[in-house]
Amino acid sequence: MNHDDLFLRACRGERGSRPPVWLMRQAGRYLPEYREVRKKVDFLTLCRTPELAAQVTLQPIERLGVDAAILFSDILVPAPAMGLNLDFNPGPVVAPPVRSADDVKHLVVPEIEAEVPFVYETIRILRRELQGRVPLIGFAAAPFTLSAYLVEGEGSRTFGHWKRMLYAAPEVAHALLDKTTQTTIRYLVAQVRAGAQAIQLFDTWAGLVSAEDYAVFSLPYVKRVLDAVRAEGVPTIYFALDAAHAAGLVATCGADALGTDWRQSLADASRAFGDGFALQGNLDPCVLLADVATVRRRTLAMLQDGAGLPGHIANLGHGILPETPVDNAIAFVETVKGFRIS
Amino acid sequence: MNHDDLFLRACRGERGSRPPVWLMRQAGRYLPEYREVRKKVDFLTLCRTPELAAQVTLQPIERLGVDAAILFSDILVPAPAMGLNLDFNPGPVVAPPVRSADDVKHLVVPEIEAEVPFVYETIRILRRELQGRVPLIGFAAAPFTLSAYLVEGEGSRTFGHWKRMLYAAPEVAHALLDKTTQTTIRYLVAQVRAGAQAIQLFDTWAGLVSAEDYAVFSLPYVKRVLDAVRAEGVPTIYFALDAAHAAGLVATCGADALGTDWRQSLADASRAFGDGFALQGNLDPCVLLADVATVRRRTLAMLQDGAGLPGHIANLGHGILPETPVDNAIAFVETVKGFRIS
Repeated sequence: MNHDDLFLRACRGERGSRPPVWLMRQAGRYLPEYREVRKKVDFLTLCRTPELAAQVTLQPIERLGVDAAILFSDILVPAPAMGLNLDFNPGPVVAPPVRSADDVKHLVVPEIEAEVPFVYETIRILRRELQGRVPLIGFAAAPFTLSAYLVEGEGSRTFGHWKRMLYAAPEVAHALLDKTTQTTIRYLVAQVRAGAQAIQLFDTWAGLVSAEDYAVFSLPYVKRVLDAVRAEGVPTIYFALDAAHAAGLVATCGADALGTDWRQSLADASRAFGDGFALQGNLDPCVLLADVATVRRRTLAMLQDGAGLPGHIANLGHGILPETPVDNAIAFVETVKGFRIS
Repeated sequence: MNHDDLFLRACRGERGSRPPVWLMRQAGRYLPEYREVRKKVDFLTLCRTPELAAQVTLQPIERLGVDAAILFSDILVPAPAMGLNLDFNPGPVVAPPVRSADDVKHLVVPEIEAEVPFVYETIRILRRELQGRVPLIGFAAAPFTLSAYLVEGEGSRTFGHWKRMLYAAPEVAHALLDKTTQTTIRYLVAQVRAGAQAIQLFDTWAGLVSAEDYAVFSLPYVKRVLDAVRAEGVPTIYFALDAAHAAGLVATCGADALGTDWRQSLADASRAFGDGFALQGNLDPCVLLADVATVRRRTLAMLQDGAGLPGHIANLGHGILPETPVDNAIAFVETVKGFRIS
């Protein structure tokens, strides 16, 4: 079994001799070689320069020996194609924020390959350079999360503008969600056609609303996106952060594998989802701020917890933190690679 | 039935003709009369000046007609009594942060009444001025949440320092939790003896860790605090934010009533807790950023949802936001007061 099989088969709920492993945000600031590249270019230029984006995508493959590569990009990369300005300062800033029915009407559902050609060129370079060593994951934000950013204009503790729209002007929210859904479908289908071998959909802000609002404002759009991606023949992973309260709904999204954060054990998450799913996760990224012994101990506990699942893709429960010591990331990956499902 | 009965009886799981209502952070920046007082004094001076703290505590009683008053203070007010410096800038800053076994050893379990006499004087003034119109709630942070702030030194997205301590040096974390527990017990027992008629324990950061870690690092200390407060004969409310994943554990804490945020409906939260509890909550504070019609509609839905519970204290699911229009806060309170449990 080569690495390619290990990850893709786990997505589909087939168990190998050990779980495959990768880390969300594995190409990032915790790696000195990434910081070297960033000395030369800003974040958005890096996303938009295929040779450099491919280079940093490959860094954790070399350094950590993970079982999958994930396209180096950002969930807001499609925003300019929809007619908005995007900057990083250092968090994302979208301008002007989308606040009214009129703002939504002016948004474009873009011819995405013409608008963000660098994404697809990066994928083509990566498939050539990876030569099948590990599979390449493409990704996008779920429509709820992308829309939340477009309305808010930047990160927010409460997402008050977005929630005000959901609560007081749901028809405007739905019009926006429809446009972000159409855009996301085009964006991801083109990623698969360029060579992405699996797709992860990030619903980072899904957990900010009640299960009832999630069912109305996120889930139906997630289903549309995943249906379209599945029709392209690649496995899908859906990750709704901090959404344990909506697990029963999340389970109906149609993804091959479900991401889960560290708040629930993998066994508890599996029960909450209704069992039968391959799960991806779920070590608290803060564990990787501790010492190697702690990383090994908590990673082993996670692996034992996941050994009873139909499929387990070892990962963190959220993106790796910039202040993480590289040795701890290595210890995490090596602990997974040394584990054998008995 | 007077107001006093309405709130205190609901805490104890007795249903009146309608739920009592108050708002977390009801004395705060959304009120123009509060901002007037704050023009003259900074936040910490306000907390430490009994006449002024009592004045702002009473403002929402007059303006909104809520059914309970809550002491104007901050969960970090006991920190200086433990030997640390406290400032607001505008969020809390504790210095030096508590990071090592040695740091913990130097923390004082204070003679709390001598250290923060202004808290108790504020309570005595309030009981005189309230004259039984509405009951007075005292409060503190749960030991987990207070300890999280002492270790972090300020608010944090990840609470990485605190988690590193939990994961890599649990014995240091337990030593700290023991000291914050002893301090909190003294702090709250003295509040009751000064006149607080109910106590709310805020565990704002409990939801940042897994259910398993919550069971080890928060719950046992919450139980100790609630046991000590209950022995003083007043009802207790425990509110662990964003902790739906640990609901079964939260339910064992021993509080008379449990707070819950908006992520779960009251009916779902009640089921997750194991039924039989009076619940407090749970409108998303962001609903109060919308229009009056939306506030009324969503408040009514919450009230209907809560009508089947053993007891319901209408409240928000987190503190009222500073940018909330006062009219929306009034609409929330009036909707509750106009509701009749059929």
